[in-house]
Amino acid sequence: MTTTSKQQEIDEFIKICYELKEEVLTTMKTKYTMPQEAIDWVNEMIDYNCIGGKLNRGISVIHCAEALTQGKGLTPEARKKAAILGWCIEWLQAFFLVADDVMDDSITRRGQPCWYRIPKVKQIAINDAFLLESFVYQILKTHFRGESYYLDLVETFQEVIFQTELGQLLDLTSQPLDGPTNLDRFTIERHQKIVVFKTAYYTFYLSAASAMFLSGVSDPACYTLAQEICVKIGEYFQVQDDYLDCYADPEVLGKIGTDIQDNKCSWLVVQALARATPEQRAVIKEHYGKNNEASIAVIKALYVSLDLEGVYRKYENESYDELCKLIGAVNNMPATVFHMLLSKIYKRTM
Amino acid sequence: MTTTSKQQEIDEFIKICYELKEEVLTTMKTKYTMPQEAIDWVNEMIDYNCIGGKLNRGISVIHCAEALTQGKGLTPEARKKAAILGWCIEWLQAFFLVADDVMDDSITRRGQPCWYRIPKVKQIAINDAFLLESFVYQILKTHFRGESYYLDLVETFQEVIFQTELGQLLDLTSQPLDGPTNLDRFTIERHQKIVVFKTAYYTFYLSAASAMFLSGVSDPACYTLAQEICVKIGEYFQVQDDYLDCYADPEVLGKIGTDIQDNKCSWLVVQALARATPEQRAVIKEHYGKNNEASIAVIKALYVSLDLEGVYRKYENESYDELCKLIGAVNNMPATVFHMLLSKIYKRTM
Repeated sequence: MTTTSKQQEIDEFIKICYELKEEVLTTMKTKYTMPQEAIDWVNEMIDYNCIGGKLNRGISVIHCAEALTQGKGLTPEARKKAAILGWCIEWLQAFFLVADDVMDDSITRRGQPCWYRIPKVKQIAINDAFLLESFVYQILKTHFRGESYYLDLVETFQEVIFQTELGQLLDLTSQPLDGPTNLDRFTIERHQKIVVFKTAYYTFYLSAASAMFLSGVSDPACYTLAQEICVKIGEYFQVQDDYLDCYADPEVLGKIGTDIQDNKCSWLVVQALARATPEQRAVIKEHYGKNNEASIAVIKALYVSLDLEGVYRKYENESYDELCKLIGAVNNMPATVFHMLLSKIYKRTM
Repeated sequence: MTTTSKQQEIDEFIKICYELKEEVLTTMKTKYTMPQEAIDWVNEMIDYNCIGGKLNRGISVIHCAEALTQGKGLTPEARKKAAILGWCIEWLQAFFLVADDVMDDSITRRGQPCWYRIPKVKQIAINDAFLLESFVYQILKTHFRGESYYLDLVETFQEVIFQTELGQLLDLTSQPLDGPTNLDRFTIERHQKIVVFKTAYYTFYLSAASAMFLSGVSDPACYTLAQEICVKIGEYFQVQDDYLDCYADPEVLGKIGTDIQDNKCSWLVVQALARATPEQRAVIKEHYGKNNEASIAVIKALYVSLDLEGVYRKYENESYDELCKLIGAVNNMPATVFHMLLSKIYKRTM
């Protein structure tokens, strides 16, 4: 796809967001007789939190639906429906991010202050997150209530929301808030579980499943298989994310990584711990999660001495091979949908 | 009902909560392979936040379902289902309260520190609130997926959640967080809207509608009428709440009211403003929302001079008469369900 047509695709996609926003604002006004200042609040809140991201998840629904047509291409109506479900995922992500930023005490998001950091917003952001989730269910109802797959679609969203919340629980409790760092909780197994639950389901499986509903896939075995593959793609994606947080060029990445000083259960630290001598483990215990340049440098030097870059390259290649094998065995639906998802992230640098 | 059989009813009801908790914990363990510490966390979180309230809303579902049998009484199976839906409302309320306490910076809830005030919890409470909401959908799915009314039931919960969030939005934005008090926003209309959305739908309509689904009521006109009546009962209930915050005996109420110093959009202040001379309005502007004994005393004296107690007695009598008329005209389902709801709160002092 050329740069122009890619930009055009994004512009067309963004138009749908404004249409959906108008729908929910009109419902607030007419059905629920909300005063103008509540409408204005939600209008600004949606603009601030739903636009401005990379829109990868949302646009993926369109690309997945396209892949499922096996070259026939999408009708304008089918493309519109895919875009609507794409925005449901983007709004869902906005719901998670608005709340996560409050929970993590974050400063910026997508190059602007986090929503809860706006002086007039503060803790109201929590209720705004709830509203975003409710809007998703409303949009599903408005646009898909008459479809045979409506209930399955709603329950898929409910389940993915729950899985993401479980991931957030695992992440937030990976270190005690009221005690010292406990490195025993930074295991490869725990990291994998956090990643799968907190990211993989909503980032990959939900896009694929949404497109599958739209395309009339009804065999439950297809959804089980899609889940298995998407979970592995999501795991690979988050390992990249953790790696890039430390090793990417901040100019290319668009942000400066802070996982080390933030005491995050990152793939790098769990790999380091799995390889560390007792002495190296003591170094991690002393310096990980400390917000000063010297401690950060000590941890980075330790990563170098354990050759985590090499470990990552190996992981990347093995994951890719395993995924290709898994996708190659798909025979109950067009496997291109998974190749497409994988190609979007393979060897990414941002 | 005797004190013993009332206590017995509550004990039986609470047993169901523990059954539901075991169900969701088992699902977390087996279906989602969560580690033991996540199970332990959720176990403690549910105990801390779902038990300990007055359980009025939950038990109302059983009483509504009983009223709808018109004297025939509930089968054990029907009683169990009503209790399960009752707990769905209680868990839903726990979801709202856990989050509201974070948003309002509250100190105590039901005689113990708010959940987010526990040192190991803090902002994780936000994710716990989300989890409680997800558990409600899970319980609905486990116990009602096969019923013909399942989709309507789920959508009723979704809609009531949305309405409650809209009420919270109106409440949180009734005063600017980043500027001085604006008394123009303390109007009778705004107060009424906050009350209906934030309290009435989930406190009364959801109990009635849940029982109606269980009892096989399928005419949409019945649900519309139930909504109209329940909204008025809820309005009356919250006006009582606002009144009792200032005038009840703290020993009987079980807490000390703080609406005046908390700058709350209470029925008392909107009634005072509607009756105040320009001079009295200036007094409210100076002293309302100030956390000191002298300012609180000034506001309380002003309420006395405006005879708000008399205004309240008149409102109470008029509301009751209006509700009885409305309920008297119900002819498409047993009206006793609404008489029963109203009798639970008429002239309450706690």
